[in-house]
Formats: sequence, C-alpha cells, structure tokens
Amino acid sequence: MPLHIDSPAQNRRVLLARRPIGVPQPTDFQLDTVPCPACGEGEVLVRNLYLSVDPAQRGWASAEANYSEPVALGAPMRALAVARVLESRAEGYSPGDILYGFFGWQDCASVPPATVLHRVVENVPLDAVPSLLGINGVTAYLATTLLGRPARGDVMVVSTAAGSVGSFAGQIAARLGARVIGLTGTDEKARICVERFGYTTALNYRSAELDAELRAQAPQGVNVYFDNVGGALLDRVLRQMAVGGRIVQCGTTSVPTWTPAPSGPRNEREILTRRLTWSGFVIFDHRPAYAEACARLASWWQDGTLTYETDIRDGIETAPDALKTLYAGENRGKLLIRLV
Amino acid sequence: MPLHIDSPAQNRRVLLARRPIGVPQPTDFQLDTVPCPACGEGEVLVRNLYLSVDPAQRGWASAEANYSEPVALGAPMRALAVARVLESRAEGYSPGDILYGFFGWQDCASVPPATVLHRVVENVPLDAVPSLLGINGVTAYLATTLLGRPARGDVMVVSTAAGSVGSFAGQIAARLGARVIGLTGTDEKARICVERFGYTTALNYRSAELDAELRAQAPQGVNVYFDNVGGALLDRVLRQMAVGGRIVQCGTTSVPTWTPAPSGPRNEREILTRRLTWSGFVIFDHRPAYAEACARLASWWQDGTLTYETDIRDGIETAPDALKTLYAGENRGKLLIRLV
Repeated sequence: MPLHIDSPAQNRRVLLARRPIGVPQPTDFQLDTVPCPACGEGEVLVRNLYLSVDPAQRGWASAEANYSEPVALGAPMRALAVARVLESRAEGYSPGDILYGFFGWQDCASVPPATVLHRVVENVPLDAVPSLLGINGVTAYLATTLLGRPARGDVMVVSTAAGSVGSFAGQIAARLGARVIGLTGTDEKARICVERFGYTTALNYRSAELDAELRAQAPQGVNVYFDNVGGALLDRVLRQMAVGGRIVQCGTTSVPTWTPAPSGPRNEREILTRRLTWSGFVIFDHRPAYAEACARLASWWQDGTLTYETDIRDGIETAPDALKTLYAGENRGKLLIRLV
Repeated sequence: MPLHIDSPAQNRRVLLARRPIGVPQPTDFQLDTVPCPACGEGEVLVRNLYLSVDPAQRGWASAEANYSEPVALGAPMRALAVARVLESRAEGYSPGDILYGFFGWQDCASVPPATVLHRVVENVPLDAVPSLLGINGVTAYLATTLLGRPARGDVMVVSTAAGSVGSFAGQIAARLGARVIGLTGTDEKARICVERFGYTTALNYRSAELDAELRAQAPQGVNVYFDNVGGALLDRVLRQMAVGGRIVQCGTTSVPTWTPAPSGPRNEREILTRRLTWSGFVIFDHRPAYAEACARLASWWQDGTLTYETDIRDGIETAPDALKTLYAGENRGKLLIRLV
C-alpha cells in the first residue's frame, strides 16, 4: 500500500460544533484539516480505515450526564473506528496491527492503549471488525449469553430485529437453540429477519394485531426479551413475559427524549407477579470479556452460523449526515464510513 | 392440654362471601360453623393455633389472574397458619408436630402435605413461627441473600422498613455488613427502625426533602433497594441507584389498584444507564430453600441478631376485620389471630 495512504500528511477531522437537540444534525458538526499528529510517548499513531456510526454517539454528543463523559465542543466527534497502526510507542502494539477503538471521526490520531477495545487477531474482512467484532456483535453476544441466557426451546423476542445489534442477537439466540421472534418496522425487514438472520418468525410492530400475533407465536409467554427500543413496545412485550423471564435493556432508541422522562404504565407489578429479571447492559463494562467474545463470533462467522450486513458510505465528508441517516432507519446494515 | 382444645368438635370457618373491590372488608367474609372433618387418606388433621394475616391475601381473594389461583367464593379464606397435628395419615408427620402452611382461616382442617411450607423443628416461641420463620422472615432472608446480595459497606434501602418483611430485611442486611436506610411513614416508626431493627438510619418518606435526605445518607448511590411498596417512592429511589445496583421487588402495596395499571415515569433509561438489575421475588418459588432459611433465622434470633414483633388479636371472629387493619397500617408488628 503506498506510503501516502498509510501516513497522510493532513488530518481531516469532524468536530462537534454545538450540542445537538435530539438527533445530531449535519449543522452540529464542522470539518477541519490539521497536520497529522506525531506519535506520543506511550501511545500508538493510527490511521483510521473505517469510521463507525453508532446510536450511542447521540448520547456522547449531548451535555446530559450519561454513562460516559460528553464530547467537548470543538473536539473531534467521539467515534469507534477500525485503524491500522502506523507507529507504536506503546508496549504490545506494532506497525500494521489492526485495532478497533475510540479513535474519533478523523483520518489519524495518536492514542493511548486505553482507547483500544480490541486488537484484531481474527481472520475476518475489515468491514466485519466494527460490526461482527464491534460493539454491536459483542453486545449481542455478551448481553445474550450473560443476561438473556436463552435455553434450548425458550422464546426470545428481539426488537430492532434487523438492526446492527438485533440481527446478531437473533442469530446468536437461534444458534443457542431458542425460538427467536423478531420485531421490526417493515414487512420487508421482517422477511430479511427470517431469510437472512435465522429468526423463527418476525412481526411488524406497527401491526394493529401485534399483541395477538405475539401471543400466537409465544403461547407459553416470552422467556427473554432482548430490547433495544424501550417505550410502548417494551410495555406490550413485558405483559407477555413468562414467569421467570428476563428482559435485557440494551437501548431505548424509540424514546426521543428523556428530559423529562415520558410516562407510561407502571411495570413493577408485572416484574413482581411474573418474577422477571430486568437488567441494563452497557458493553463498556465488559472489556475483559471482549477478546473471547470476538473469538467466538469470528468462529461462528467462519462456520456460517453468523452473517453480517454493512452499509458503507465513502469519505469523511459523509460523517456529519450519518447519525441523521441512522436514526431515520435509512441504512441497510451497519453504517460505516470508509476512509481509504 | 385438654382434649376439647386439641380436637374441637366444631370447626368455625371464615368464608370468602364475595370478591373484594380493593382492600377486603369485613362484609366480604362470612363466619360459619361445621363439624370438624375426619383425617383424609394421605393427609394430616391439623388444629390451627395462630392464623396469619398477610397482604398477599388481598390478591388471593381477588378474581384477577395473579401468581396463585383465586380463592373460590364460599370456601374458607386461604391463609397461612401455625397448627398442631392431631392425627396423621401422611408419611413424615406425627401427632404433636407443629406445622406452618396453608390451613385457612378456620379451627381445623384435613390437609395434604403439599399445603405445608415448614415443619417447625426450631426452638422458637409459637408466635415466631408465622413471623420470623414465616413467609415474612423467609422472604426477607431469601430475597436479600439471593437477589439483593448487599456486600459489606453497600447501602441497602428498605421500604416499609418497620413492617413485617422490611424489619427482617433491614436486620439481615445490617447483619451482612451493609449500611441500611429505612423508609417508613412516621417519625415514630423511623425511631423504631433504628432502635429496634438495627437500621443505620431511617427516613420518613412523607418528608418534602426526602430526595435530598436520601442523597445525604447515600452520596455514592443506593446499591440495593428492597422494595415492598412500588409507586412514586420506587421512582424516586430508582433515580438514586448506584451503577450496578439491584432492585428487589417484593411487593407493591402503595398502589391501590392495578386494573388498569396507573402511569408513572418511564424507567428503562435508568435501568440501562445505571446497569440496574430489577427482579421480582415471590416466596412460593423457593420452597426447597425454606427449611435452611428457617434454621439460619432461628439461630440469628437465638444469638440476638434478629428480633421480631407480633400484634396478636384473639379469636377467629377478629379475622374479617384483619386485612382492613393491615392495609390501614394500624398493626404494630406481624398481625396474628390466636385461636387457642
């Protein structure tokens, strides 16, 4: 690969220009170009190959206290990326290593090892790194195996079933022997869930008959609800949980704002009488398990158990639009920005 | 003990006469007197000594699908009781045994072994059986040790802190090394929590400054919330949970009706961002652990770790009023009806 690609003289960056209200819009960002940094002491200099677009970025851009610090105004937008190491002044990293971590929406960066989530040793395509081996695949794997724990024959329901986390959760639960029911927003996506992601069946949550349809598919109740959306759909599935069922809360993307929290039906009586266990899952609590999860996910991709889909846009200039695209559900598969 | 007490010729019973609306009222019950039954094949004939009055009876009397079958109209009200075996035609039971189980609001009954929760082998006073070794003490012990799991130094908050379950939960958590904060409805009960039940502190939940008072007592957040009440108080404590905290839902007594479910602020975002685990606990799922829990509870009573309080009314004719008394919070300690 020619040197000018591996080591760009210029660093194009997408800066957070102002705090988004709701979903980040293109006008919330600003592009600039600065010289590529030198590799800092104890750090690695990385060249980003793919930038990841993730729903969590909305929270990172907001000023609200959340489960991580907000991005500073004027700083490169916090983002996961797949990168190649150009130079290393940190133990355990060598030029040519492929890394996945918090390298920001920019061409290159000098970063400490703490920003690295995974040094990629698996033999998978590069675009599989931020999807299959990224926070989406690893969240699906760890949240399903640690919290959802579907047993053979259990019914697991997955919301955003065709999405970047849901599509893996469905495939993993099917691999573990569960009957997997997808909930998704179009009949077309429901078809994809069954044909491509191994769901037993998939329902369009916009159906007026959803409650009855779900009851017909899970007459003994739902053992595991892998939920990425929260809101009214959660309330409905919750009322069809089996005794001893488990709800895994991985996201709340259906709710536009939490300040103030919107209201809904009280749920504690359902938790009590159905003896549910309802848990929140945030991948960044589980770094020690990351590498092992990737090994399993890669082997399941290699043996044909898992498939992944990516929707690749070219050029860093597409980044400011990307979160809007994501929240509008216009992407087909994991949304990535290819830089090289 | 004279024979006429051990083996009454007549059986006075408190029948469920109609389905209560809300809290069962005296007019929902009817007293009758029938001959004492003979001991059935495979059953034990028991003489009730203490009848237990429990919040769960409200659910048993209602027609709503719940976590147990509703009591049939015209049948003796389902109730826990402490009884002496008069005659046994079931293996493992002998005359004179003291049993705790579902023997109903009546003088005597012929019952199958499946109705027995515990054959009392511990050396405790009889009125300790339906409190310390009853579903209250055992719920507090198992829900705390299996689900709440307060570690040394953790903060555990208990609602209805001076109540029949809460008072044990508080004492048990203190025994396990937690800082225990009680929530209760009067300053007098708050004083009792600290002086008698080993709470580190107790707050009156009616205080206008409750949020600030709780924050001052748990500046690092609440690790475990042992909740018996649900409702608005739950929403408030939930928003002060520490990351990784656990909510144990043992009751929802503050909410007058669940048909339809009242509304409240949506909680799934808190579950996600604080990585909470929120679980429902129903004692009847844990019969295999019952005897071991009783052994531990009795030993902790014997060594002075645990104390219990009972509020004893005399005569079966006090039963129809008892649930009203209980839900009005007029009892001081576990409400029992002494028959002999």
